[in-house]
Amino acid sequence: MAVTGVPRATAVAAREVAAPARLARSALTRRALVGPDADRWFADRSAAADLAVRHVPLDGLTGWHTDPRTGDLAHDSGRFFAVRGIEVTVPDQEVSHWNQPIIHQPEVGVLGILVREFGGVPHLLMQAKVEPGNVNGVQLSPTVQATRSNYTGVHRGRSVPYLSHFLDVPGERVLVDVRHSEQGAWFYRKRNRNVVVEVDEDLPVLDGFRWFTLGEVHQMLARDNAVNMDARTVLACLPFAGEGIAAALAGDGGGRGDGFRAALARSCEPGAGSAHTTGELLRWISEIRTRVDLRTAPRPLAGLSDWRHHPDRVSHRTGAFFDVVGVAVHAPDREVAHWAQPMIRPCGLGLAAFLVTRIGGVLHALVHARAEAGCADVVELAPTVQCTPANYRHLPARARPRYLDAVLGARPERVRLAVTQSEEGGRFYHARTRHVVVEVDAPDGAETPRHRWVALHQFVDLLRHSHYVNIQARSLVACLYGLAVR
Amino acid sequence: MAVTGVPRATAVAAREVAAPARLARSALTRRALVGPDADRWFADRSAAADLAVRHVPLDGLTGWHTDPRTGDLAHDSGRFFAVRGIEVTVPDQEVSHWNQPIIHQPEVGVLGILVREFGGVPHLLMQAKVEPGNVNGVQLSPTVQATRSNYTGVHRGRSVPYLSHFLDVPGERVLVDVRHSEQGAWFYRKRNRNVVVEVDEDLPVLDGFRWFTLGEVHQMLARDNAVNMDARTVLACLPFAGEGIAAALAGDGGGRGDGFRAALARSCEPGAGSAHTTGELLRWISEIRTRVDLRTAPRPLAGLSDWRHHPDRVSHRTGAFFDVVGVAVHAPDREVAHWAQPMIRPCGLGLAAFLVTRIGGVLHALVHARAEAGCADVVELAPTVQCTPANYRHLPARARPRYLDAVLGARPERVRLAVTQSEEGGRFYHARTRHVVVEVDAPDGAETPRHRWVALHQFVDLLRHSHYVNIQARSLVACLYGLAVR
Repeated sequence: MAVTGVPRATAVAAREVAAPARLARSALTRRALVGPDADRWFADRSAAADLAVRHVPLDGLTGWHTDPRTGDLAHDSGRFFAVRGIEVTVPDQEVSHWNQPIIHQPEVGVLGILVREFGGVPHLLMQAKVEPGNVNGVQLSPTVQATRSNYTGVHRGRSVPYLSHFLDVPGERVLVDVRHSEQGAWFYRKRNRNVVVEVDEDLPVLDGFRWFTLGEVHQMLARDNAVNMDARTVLACLPFAGEGIAAALAGDGGGRGDGFRAALARSCEPGAGSAHTTGELLRWISEIRTRVDLRTAPRPLAGLSDWRHHPDRVSHRTGAFFDVVGVAVHAPDREVAHWAQPMIRPCGLGLAAFLVTRIGGVLHALVHARAEAGCADVVELAPTVQCTPANYRHLPARARPRYLDAVLGARPERVRLAVTQSEEGGRFYHARTRHVVVEVDAPDGAETPRHRWVALHQFVDLLRHSHYVNIQARSLVACLYGLAVR
Repeated sequence: MAVTGVPRATAVAAREVAAPARLARSALTRRALVGPDADRWFADRSAAADLAVRHVPLDGLTGWHTDPRTGDLAHDSGRFFAVRGIEVTVPDQEVSHWNQPIIHQPEVGVLGILVREFGGVPHLLMQAKVEPGNVNGVQLSPTVQATRSNYTGVHRGRSVPYLSHFLDVPGERVLVDVRHSEQGAWFYRKRNRNVVVEVDEDLPVLDGFRWFTLGEVHQMLARDNAVNMDARTVLACLPFAGEGIAAALAGDGGGRGDGFRAALARSCEPGAGSAHTTGELLRWISEIRTRVDLRTAPRPLAGLSDWRHHPDRVSHRTGAFFDVVGVAVHAPDREVAHWAQPMIRPCGLGLAAFLVTRIGGVLHALVHARAEAGCADVVELAPTVQCTPANYRHLPARARPRYLDAVLGARPERVRLAVTQSEEGGRFYHARTRHVVVEVDAPDGAETPRHRWVALHQFVDLLRHSHYVNIQARSLVACLYGLAVR
């Protein structure tokens, strides 16, 4: 946007225009200009992590109570979160009616990353953090991840380091500030603030923190369960310009030798082509949101017809989907050293997969407009396939989600990404999702009334707003960014 | 956006880019190229209107029932809408806690305008429609305004004319398709689909319909209660390019002679300057939505501590705000000839006012990020002042809404717009809002943490998405568009 006549606005606009190119420098820098070696630092942090988790009965969670009338699980303070029941109706959908437990967490938390330039290269202050639900101790996390209860002191713990940098910030230092949804199948309309703030001053690097280049973070994204969900959603909101990337790839032979990476780099360029204009995508989403009559109604957790209550868990009568379980945590290094809480434990490894293709030389991903119980606005754009494949293993092909077989049966040389990432370890126990990107030819006919091809620069446009791109798709976008320069 | 390599996308992008200039031609055309004289047509339609309304007790509404347990009012079919109670908490706000009746209408209705070119000038198919709540018989309405219950036949009435043109439309014929909120103080998270579709073929112009140029509609917007709310919200979503407008104004002396109109025309140009970048505005909104902890909880209508139940109405204990009343309607020309329903009857004339100023030669309006009971996403951008002034008449200045006195006390030569518009006559009884635009100097210091200067082309960006601009601000935007070329 051309901004004239208002010096401050002109300066802000110039900063906004320059940001993607500056971040591209960071993405192309494979080693931080300050601090210890990344691998050694991460290994040290993993060794030092000290957190013990044991399963406890749901009615024995210290600080929590079961409502005698509804069976709902809530914290004694009334804060943090609660597990309640919900009944969902989506007419004209394959499964059009169901009930389930769901987490209510109305507080908007902060997922914040601090950025600072060293030697002209932006660095991200990341944290090695352990969470009770993680399959492996520590994962790379944002500078700050805190619920309002955390930072308003409800839990009476130590204060959250670096939090003040994300409160009352001058607008021109903010690179990203947008509230995004989290898992719509497990959270009822949960939103967190994804925020990136730039600082100029020297900051103490506390124990457990390190400055990373975007290039280093991207390398970590290629490893299983190394970068946590809270970091991935913020990384998806950090656009870096394709031009610098494309030039660098051309310089090292990537632009010519590797058609996929060149198409991916072009897809990041704001002016690159697309199969549909962004206006068309918005109108398509509006039309679906008008047509799909998603209705939800609160239900007592104890009264869900499809769910069974056991002392140690609440489970679906088929054993599928997920369990609600209780854990007691001992974490001497955390703000609070002891606590108990309910968690969601999914049954089986999830799958989040994009089919991608080149259209006019620009890489596009096939998104699915998906309605979930917790969606605040009917549908969000999800991966081409998002499901737990084990639930469908014994079903005939026609009962399986569209494109599931195309993903599972892809020839190895067409698989551009295959990595397992963890869902948020503060609410989900051992929840992992296989992230897969498969390149396909011949996009004609791939679109359905609910599927559209979207270029990466269009994700950048959409991710400036809430309600458009779901957490699984954002996680895949972050991983795709990682592929561009790896 | 440059779209390359995909012929269909290129064509769609070209249409999108051309649309504002084509609409500018329509805005500059003061007389339709087809059909009868607008004034005569409107006078004839007003004379022909046949609708009788009488007040009836709330427990005597045919087809409706009062829930014996909650006192909630609902239609016997379970469709249309219901009047329930709500409790609202907004910490740190002047009034931080209250309860009230509110309309629940989860169905997304269609507010649709058909567009067709005659002699190279786009025309809008408008309807002269009477509604039970209108203060004066007919008002100019969109081609279609229908709830889902209307068009799925729940009310067993005649079919809605022209509706089929808005269902299953090829994407490239759609100029606008976005769901917007309605009055957040009276509706709980209501949304309607604002949609504009272009047609090429001859259409029969049914009794009660006429093709209007945008210029004709703009002239109607200058008259009290002539263009209904459903039309105004759609008109606000129809961007027309400032360049053609500015050139035309320069041609007739407006560009030089009238600084206000020139600044307004420049403000419509997509590339014109602004005090803040749109990115900054989005980040500002995110920050407020994170900070403001708006909570709502359903309450039985019969149990609202501040409201009194009378046979003919539910009223606030102070007599202020609004009443819930019942009406019986006889309308021989409508799809259904007889019906009864509850309505909201506001106490006093509303005010929706923008302070505007020129920044770098570009007109800006001062928006207010306002939390209302029915907001789906905490706050939306509202007029600088939005209130019922009578409620504050006897209060000291410090207790009155910010800028109310600046609007009410403005010197007449600084008042750029002053017209009374009606709220939706299908739900609101004799609800009128004074629309005022006052130009001020010296914007420094006018902004507060909740107020920002916004250029008109930024409203265009924001109005492509739900949840940003409330109905009162959209109505003022439509009126401002009318001022540009009147």
